[in-house]
Amino acid sequence: MGKKDTILTGDRPTGPLHLGHFVGSLRARVELQESCEQYVMIADLQALTDHAKESEKVRNSVIQVALDYLAVGIDPAKTTIFIQSHIPALSELTMYYLNLVTWNRLKHNPTVKQEIVQKGFGESVPAGFMTYPVSQAADITAFKANLVPVGEDQKPMIEQTNEIVRAFNRTYHTDVLVEAQAKIPKIARLPGTDGQAKMGKSLNNAIYLRDLPDQVSKKVKKMYTDPNHLRIEDPGKVEGNPVFSYLDAFGTDLEKIQELKSHYERGGLGDGTVKKYLLEVLLEFLEPIHKRRAEYEGDPQEVLEMLRKGTERANETASQTLHEVREAIGINYFG
Amino acid sequence: MGKKDTILTGDRPTGPLHLGHFVGSLRARVELQESCEQYVMIADLQALTDHAKESEKVRNSVIQVALDYLAVGIDPAKTTIFIQSHIPALSELTMYYLNLVTWNRLKHNPTVKQEIVQKGFGESVPAGFMTYPVSQAADITAFKANLVPVGEDQKPMIEQTNEIVRAFNRTYHTDVLVEAQAKIPKIARLPGTDGQAKMGKSLNNAIYLRDLPDQVSKKVKKMYTDPNHLRIEDPGKVEGNPVFSYLDAFGTDLEKIQELKSHYERGGLGDGTVKKYLLEVLLEFLEPIHKRRAEYEGDPQEVLEMLRKGTERANETASQTLHEVREAIGINYFG
Repeated sequence: MGKKDTILTGDRPTGPLHLGHFVGSLRARVELQESCEQYVMIADLQALTDHAKESEKVRNSVIQVALDYLAVGIDPAKTTIFIQSHIPALSELTMYYLNLVTWNRLKHNPTVKQEIVQKGFGESVPAGFMTYPVSQAADITAFKANLVPVGEDQKPMIEQTNEIVRAFNRTYHTDVLVEAQAKIPKIARLPGTDGQAKMGKSLNNAIYLRDLPDQVSKKVKKMYTDPNHLRIEDPGKVEGNPVFSYLDAFGTDLEKIQELKSHYERGGLGDGTVKKYLLEVLLEFLEPIHKRRAEYEGDPQEVLEMLRKGTERANETASQTLHEVREAIGINYFG
Repeated sequence: MGKKDTILTGDRPTGPLHLGHFVGSLRARVELQESCEQYVMIADLQALTDHAKESEKVRNSVIQVALDYLAVGIDPAKTTIFIQSHIPALSELTMYYLNLVTWNRLKHNPTVKQEIVQKGFGESVPAGFMTYPVSQAADITAFKANLVPVGEDQKPMIEQTNEIVRAFNRTYHTDVLVEAQAKIPKIARLPGTDGQAKMGKSLNNAIYLRDLPDQVSKKVKKMYTDPNHLRIEDPGKVEGNPVFSYLDAFGTDLEKIQELKSHYERGGLGDGTVKKYLLEVLLEFLEPIHKRRAEYEGDPQEVLEMLRKGTERANETASQTLHEVREAIGINYFG
């Protein structure tokens, strides 16, 4: 039997989590915590790199994200849930790693370049945003994670981490740092309710895990379908139709879903009928999540205590790595 | 009576300290520790930004620099001497400040631009080197230093710090961070033994505080003087003649020095005679320094213990500032 895989994953706390997060990452975390050493980071430090002026949003989202984690079944007894800003070793490792990456290399990181355009930073990119791939390398290596679940577009970040790992180990004649592998999820992305490829808060096309039944109902009713499916008797398209993508992602009665798809494609099945069924499926899926969320919401001190304990545990691991890193550099003056 | 001034100063541990350091900064520190709250930082983290591959040199220099401090009379009971890499709050503050500085602004820092040329980095400037002004802002603000002794060429660094202070206080509606003032020393610079404007290890023109009498003697004998003062009877130039600059800096018998200068200028005084006197002056100056150094060298554990205590004290102050900074950002989740 080999060594257990160690996973580092997490979210930037800039709002509540939605169905897209569930499909893209949360679902896998609930499974992986059974077989892996899993660290889930609430990346407030990283959120501040482009939300420095909205720190209140970041602060409030930390608790919301923690509630979402607990609600979907991430179990703090199996997974270490922690807050990034409260692990000093992550900032310290970043400082050492920044010396092993050239300024030029950071400028050419494809993920960051794309994000700069998306965020419309223009000439005023914060230095912290340009350097966040190095901070991410600190996050990953601090826990010696060998698996990092990321989307295809984030692969360059893992490459940057591994470059730092190799540079560090080579420079200091050591093997304390461990290379990581990107773990690309099978269903990478759930489309937005408007049919756009990505669900996101800023796109206003998301169903949140904490949305109450009537909010979900409203959002499902307004969902984008096949724009050419004008009359019930017309044949409709299943592909690219988010109603069916959601059924695929959350439905359990595969036979029924297959039937609905065929019926829709040959004509005679109205959008309203499919949406009504999707609403049922979503509410059934969300019910236990809401129930667990409500329990934790009633006891915010317990959530905070869970975060405190997880952060303490994460601190132990990260401090140990920092100690090894300093030992390798040769600057553990006090032993 | 106003509040005591707080001073942050220090050195990059990349070699032993020399007479230029004494004139430019150490002498002032010995005086200032009587009236000010003084923090003296051994900036190993900063040294690594351009010596990542020579960490052993940095490590060894930490102790050498500490010995030099003690030898010249910096008193750990009056001055907090500490090691930068062992103050986690400095790295953490850097992370928060990086978000308040644009990448562009860093690129245009005049001091850094000049250093990049001097160091011949070309396209491979380490990211840590480009961001070190932000790390320096963390150093200064962590101790709420209001005075920072720097050379004229380092003034842009203080300006960068103050920009960060203002941006932070404005963004987070607070006044926890304090602006600093550059304190430019009167005799900013001692020339090298070769007559170059600056004394430096890499220039191989330095007399070190730890140099033994016969090393000092050799260096003084080879010192650059007035190149046109070929025969003893010729008139010689005092200005730009490092032998006289050193006499001005270290001599105590001002009348005798004035006489020598006049004699040299009117002719009839040989370089050898002046150098012989300079050697006397320097050995007299260095004697108590060597004596104190020898005492501490005999007890390396005591030096380490002094550094440990200073670092502990510095950690208390810096952690308190970090706490206030996090409070202002609003991310002290655990109170």
